[in-house]
Amino acid sequence: MFRKFLFLVSLSAGLGSSAGAQSVINTDSVMIRKLYDEALLRGQSYDNLRYLCKRIGHRLSGSPQAAAAVEYTYQLMKQFCDTVYLQECMVPHWVRGEHDEGKITGSKGHGTVEVNILALGGSVATPKGGITAEIVEIRDFKELELLGKKGIQGKIVFFNHPFNNAHVSTFKAYGECVEYRWAGPSKAAQFGALGSIVRSMTNGIDEYAHTGSMHYDTINPKIPCAAICTRDAELLSGIIKTEGKAFFHLDLQCQTLPDVKSYNVIGEIRGSEKPEEILAVGGHLDSWDVGEGAHDDGAGVMQSMEALRLFKASGIRPKHTLRAIMFMNEENGLRGGTRYAEVVKAKNEKHITALETDAGGFTPQGFGLGMTDAQQAKIRSWAPLLLPYGIYSLTSGGGGADIGPLAKQDVPLIGLHPDSQRYFDYHHTHADVFEAVNKRELELGGAAIAALFYLIDKYGL
Amino acid sequence: MFRKFLFLVSLSAGLGSSAGAQSVINTDSVMIRKLYDEALLRGQSYDNLRYLCKRIGHRLSGSPQAAAAVEYTYQLMKQFCDTVYLQECMVPHWVRGEHDEGKITGSKGHGTVEVNILALGGSVATPKGGITAEIVEIRDFKELELLGKKGIQGKIVFFNHPFNNAHVSTFKAYGECVEYRWAGPSKAAQFGALGSIVRSMTNGIDEYAHTGSMHYDTINPKIPCAAICTRDAELLSGIIKTEGKAFFHLDLQCQTLPDVKSYNVIGEIRGSEKPEEILAVGGHLDSWDVGEGAHDDGAGVMQSMEALRLFKASGIRPKHTLRAIMFMNEENGLRGGTRYAEVVKAKNEKHITALETDAGGFTPQGFGLGMTDAQQAKIRSWAPLLLPYGIYSLTSGGGGADIGPLAKQDVPLIGLHPDSQRYFDYHHTHADVFEAVNKRELELGGAAIAALFYLIDKYGL
Repeated sequence: MFRKFLFLVSLSAGLGSSAGAQSVINTDSVMIRKLYDEALLRGQSYDNLRYLCKRIGHRLSGSPQAAAAVEYTYQLMKQFCDTVYLQECMVPHWVRGEHDEGKITGSKGHGTVEVNILALGGSVATPKGGITAEIVEIRDFKELELLGKKGIQGKIVFFNHPFNNAHVSTFKAYGECVEYRWAGPSKAAQFGALGSIVRSMTNGIDEYAHTGSMHYDTINPKIPCAAICTRDAELLSGIIKTEGKAFFHLDLQCQTLPDVKSYNVIGEIRGSEKPEEILAVGGHLDSWDVGEGAHDDGAGVMQSMEALRLFKASGIRPKHTLRAIMFMNEENGLRGGTRYAEVVKAKNEKHITALETDAGGFTPQGFGLGMTDAQQAKIRSWAPLLLPYGIYSLTSGGGGADIGPLAKQDVPLIGLHPDSQRYFDYHHTHADVFEAVNKRELELGGAAIAALFYLIDKYGL
Repeated sequence: MFRKFLFLVSLSAGLGSSAGAQSVINTDSVMIRKLYDEALLRGQSYDNLRYLCKRIGHRLSGSPQAAAAVEYTYQLMKQFCDTVYLQECMVPHWVRGEHDEGKITGSKGHGTVEVNILALGGSVATPKGGITAEIVEIRDFKELELLGKKGIQGKIVFFNHPFNNAHVSTFKAYGECVEYRWAGPSKAAQFGALGSIVRSMTNGIDEYAHTGSMHYDTINPKIPCAAICTRDAELLSGIIKTEGKAFFHLDLQCQTLPDVKSYNVIGEIRGSEKPEEILAVGGHLDSWDVGEGAHDDGAGVMQSMEALRLFKASGIRPKHTLRAIMFMNEENGLRGGTRYAEVVKAKNEKHITALETDAGGFTPQGFGLGMTDAQQAKIRSWAPLLLPYGIYSLTSGGGGADIGPLAKQDVPLIGLHPDSQRYFDYHHTHADVFEAVNKRELELGGAAIAALFYLIDKYGL
């Protein structure tokens, strides 16, 4: 590509632009441009993310690194917020063993292969030395029930339900598979399984095991459970098919320790006219205990703070209070989000909206709107102001895990929707590191949030 | 991110959807879905790109690797095209020296620093052993003219014009800077400069020098020229500022050899009704002589072939002939594109449209339309069919370098517009390797082209 640039025009022409309300567009477009200039020319989210990832690292709830992340973001927000405070909550403290071990042995004596696995968060340990049992491949819960106790008892279940890559949104594929991670262990235990292995939640075939949360029901025995990388899921499936039968050795030495005191970190820029009415934006400060939690959700945390800083640095004083929340414990408990909603209710705080950014630091494409039709229509009327920045999708329904509990209090919820193509290359793995985040893509997300908040602050919802 | 998926809905709802022509949409959406299914579930572009990058590597015009790329893509298209043929053209043969050497020495005796540079394609060599001269930092051509012969004679000029990162489209920033690479050397030579160094064309600050084409005018002496990585451009600028004066040692041993015979590679699926009318799609087979030419333009080459293969594999027989062109020599001569247009004219071939994909294998966002307003309106009427796949931008004006010469014959031109945020992280550098390309992003581009061609083939332009 050399001469190509001659043919490219700015995307700002876009598909359509509303003819009405031209004067409003002119004023507002200048302010939104100001916010974007600050983000793209003097943005701080990327350098802050580098610190969080490289100097603190991954930060599962209850870990020393989670405490460091609380302190770091508290200090950061002190630099540009009017108020910064901590909101206490008790969080689970689950700790991975030194080495999660998984080995396949076929029935035909070709030897044993070590595979890449990661214990799922919350899993119980195996007995010391691990367990070894026949492994049964299952495509879905229906198949599990068909096999029943007779086919499952005393064995390890292997849930091998791959992503449907035909979906353009990778989250849709995730949504179809994640139940096998979340509920699979208890459903397998119901039929007497000794352990549960789930195919990693990702589009491709690679060597990264993807951990994540799971949930034991209150009825069945708690069995150890892990995710296996897709490359080895294919291998395991192949060995079972070609050798008729295979055995799996699973050794997990994770443990659940007593709950730990932790915090949501909250910063505010006070509104000039109605300070008691709040526009809230947040991401989650905790991450899984592998990689650096860069896309999940260091990116969201940094974008949330940056959105407030962009107002400050651009000299735009909001009428309502802007609040950034670094939620604790989204990944394995949601204690921070739950606590936040409790406090909002107890204090009877009024939220004009709450927005979550927790889908990776990729090029933003739009927002999901979890609110009334009239409110959605209002936001869509601003589309011409957002389209020049690539924000083209304003879909119905949206929010995020941490702000989800606010739905009961009728808070209009918004979720930032970035490009989802690469998200599951990194999600919950050793590969989710700072280097996987592009500076400009990250910055565009923070700016998009600030632009939307500018409009909501000015025109209401 | 765990529960978030519950809140995300498919982007397919999008911003708007046309109420009219619902039945057409229903039929066509099924066919377009078929093309996307083939691309995302059984796509071949990614594996083919791996071969091109890893087994052949970079492939500057005239190199043995360029010849290998001709043979490889010829063989590939034989698998699914009705006709494959070569179109001869003579191409320049410029060869880089073993090591492009650049060193800065400040005037205050703090020693010498070696910096990362790459000779620009087409540059003449320095004398053996290199040249050393005072280096003068210039922001733009106006500044160059102000300094004039008095300030420039006998010195090396350093064009330090950074990207404007405020532009959302990175191509816009590129367009504002690339003139310093392209025309800078001759403009500097006009005032007696001995050499020319240009700041690399990229958004960030990193260690990769970005090579690229340049052009000597016919009046001034040809002086050696190179690009310096942005990290070292900052260093150089700093040394000049703090030490008042600095010297640059430049040693380039590149050479221009006699022209070499090469080829465009062309494959066709014959139209069932009007085979003499053509829908053409292309990318360029040559690359710069660093990295692997993965995004530039291995991605475009593979998407072009894939677009045809998707028709074949989906059982969709086009009415018109589909033609994929692997253009040779886009980077430093455009001989392939020029030759192609000559042949089209000589044979009086009718092109319904020509589309180029040469802006990286990133998530496609839209198309640039270089055609009449009526033709643009026709394509925009199909927007609801493309929006579910993230194609939201159908802007006025577009095409590509290789298909540019067809404009004289009034061929409607189209350029694929992918997300541009990461493009200049890789463009013309050692970093443009296969690993920088995401499988799904690449596949979505090939599918988007096929979808648009399906509609043009059916409804005309």
